[in-house]
Amino acid sequence: MGAWYIESGPEADVVISSRVRLARNFSNYPFPFRMTKEQEKKVLAEATDAVLNGNSAISKDFVFVDIQTLNPIERQIMVEKHLVSPQLAEGQRTSGALVSRDEKISIMVNEEDHLRIQCLFPGFQIEKAWDLCNKLDTLLEERIDMAFDSHFGYLTCCPTNIGTGIRASAMLHLPALMMTGYIRSILEACSKMGVAVRGLYGENTEASGNMFQISNQVTLGQDEEEIIAGITNITSQIIEQERMLRNELYKQNPFRFEDKVQRSLGALKHSRIMSSEEAMKLLSDVRLGVDMGIIKNINGETLNEIILVSQSASLQKSVGKQLTPDERDIKRAELIRNKLKLAD
Amino acid sequence: MGAWYIESGPEADVVISSRVRLARNFSNYPFPFRMTKEQEKKVLAEATDAVLNGNSAISKDFVFVDIQTLNPIERQIMVEKHLVSPQLAEGQRTSGALVSRDEKISIMVNEEDHLRIQCLFPGFQIEKAWDLCNKLDTLLEERIDMAFDSHFGYLTCCPTNIGTGIRASAMLHLPALMMTGYIRSILEACSKMGVAVRGLYGENTEASGNMFQISNQVTLGQDEEEIIAGITNITSQIIEQERMLRNELYKQNPFRFEDKVQRSLGALKHSRIMSSEEAMKLLSDVRLGVDMGIIKNINGETLNEIILVSQSASLQKSVGKQLTPDERDIKRAELIRNKLKLAD
Repeated sequence: MGAWYIESGPEADVVISSRVRLARNFSNYPFPFRMTKEQEKKVLAEATDAVLNGNSAISKDFVFVDIQTLNPIERQIMVEKHLVSPQLAEGQRTSGALVSRDEKISIMVNEEDHLRIQCLFPGFQIEKAWDLCNKLDTLLEERIDMAFDSHFGYLTCCPTNIGTGIRASAMLHLPALMMTGYIRSILEACSKMGVAVRGLYGENTEASGNMFQISNQVTLGQDEEEIIAGITNITSQIIEQERMLRNELYKQNPFRFEDKVQRSLGALKHSRIMSSEEAMKLLSDVRLGVDMGIIKNINGETLNEIILVSQSASLQKSVGKQLTPDERDIKRAELIRNKLKLAD
Repeated sequence: MGAWYIESGPEADVVISSRVRLARNFSNYPFPFRMTKEQEKKVLAEATDAVLNGNSAISKDFVFVDIQTLNPIERQIMVEKHLVSPQLAEGQRTSGALVSRDEKISIMVNEEDHLRIQCLFPGFQIEKAWDLCNKLDTLLEERIDMAFDSHFGYLTCCPTNIGTGIRASAMLHLPALMMTGYIRSILEACSKMGVAVRGLYGENTEASGNMFQISNQVTLGQDEEEIIAGITNITSQIIEQERMLRNELYKQNPFRFEDKVQRSLGALKHSRIMSSEEAMKLLSDVRLGVDMGIIKNINGETLNEIILVSQSASLQKSVGKQLTPDERDIKRAELIRNKLKLAD
């Protein structure tokens, strides 16, 4: 499959994934929230045609996912895989997603904007994600006339995206900054520099399992390269601080440190009932142990996969039916045990 | 070695061990607390001679342990193995113990009484322990003139032992009675029937890891067979109640039950620092899991051995030096991990 979450990336001890997305709109249609059903269908058809029948070498790598034909569990899985937004999954409009087979690229059609081009890579690869987004944008512009203003730049439905329409983000695992409380100064500094901090599933989600997504807030007045450089620079600084604190915490009491990560691994390997929240917390400890070289027979990619497959919808898909919250907690524990047994 | 704790016994799901001890005194010497050093030496020599040079077939199975020649760690190990009492280990008198090679028999000399003959068996074997004690007593009486009064029976230093001089006890693992709170009614019933309840290391110790020692309080006015029958009968009733409650607790929520015992096993297998108290608590959960057939690759004898080797003195002996409390907790965790790895 080669999906991003089962591939290793650079600086993966702190950066789980890097993502760039571009917001684009057709010049000859109103923004999605003002479109008629007819216009929605036309935009979806034109976008799909531009991707699947373009001259590009990558066209044949894409699959069209028709949101309307998916059941609730399948839609939720798309969200859990970060392939579509929760809003798109709701399916209130005629919408869809063009997804690359390796799940690194997803182009949402008729979300808040006509097009949301997203590239997602494992580890610290914001630059690479931007390059790919940029190439896709160029290819699409060959067949689609995008809404562009010579003064403002790309026009988007929400003014916060106007200009470059770019959002570059990195998903960071910051257990040491959390444990020591230094995360507060990081959050303050980010806010001053126009960098937003969110949880694992984007806007309005809480930081779960010490995972933080940082991204640019400003899309206007800077060009794409400057925005990418800014996020890259801040991410590098956070990586350094997190690593320094991890080493300090370890040195302060190696046995206590190892005890914590190993016990969390023990709980994951032995539990019979596990909530999503507890799993995220324990997986964070284990990831820290893996990254510090304390836990040797498990890798970060396995942990990424476990996070993914232990989300509600993935769990329900794996058993082929809806589950009560209690049944999910039992299935989650079983699935985690099995994945860790395989990793042993 | 064939020591009691690495052998399985009947009803071992509830009864860890059964013990009978007889208090006996030489008729021609004052009680130990009134003896001169010279008399202490004579009693020790005569008792040792009676055991090691008797005509009995078992004589050659005994080893004489001279308390005075042991260092503090070695003395403490004798206590942890239940071979001698803490008082004897203190070594304030010229004292010793005659211990059988399988550690099932220990005859303390110059403890509170001149002789304390103890037999310890795994599981529910009070009757068997009594038979062996009785045989040993008969053999010793062939060579030693015991202090005996035709009205009172055997004379002992403390009036609570006078008459039969017998104390029969069973070490019980009662997690379900504890969890449900029913242990309170058991304790009340025992107290009404003249049965004492104590912790793992006898008088004045607290119940640790849900281990309770029950024993007869009365030694006068009943013959030995009646006392043994009484303790056997009460033990049988407690076994039934404990088993019934275990099954009820399991049926109420099998996943929650399995989750608890498996997580405790996970903590024992993964921790890097573990206090004695926590170890006892977790080992109790695991023992319950083993006895309920939930944990299959570990047996009760391994758990008995772990309790023993993770006591302070045994830990210190295993590394050949004194350890700080923190070092002990680290060594304990390591030792438990290794024992459970071997059991896997």
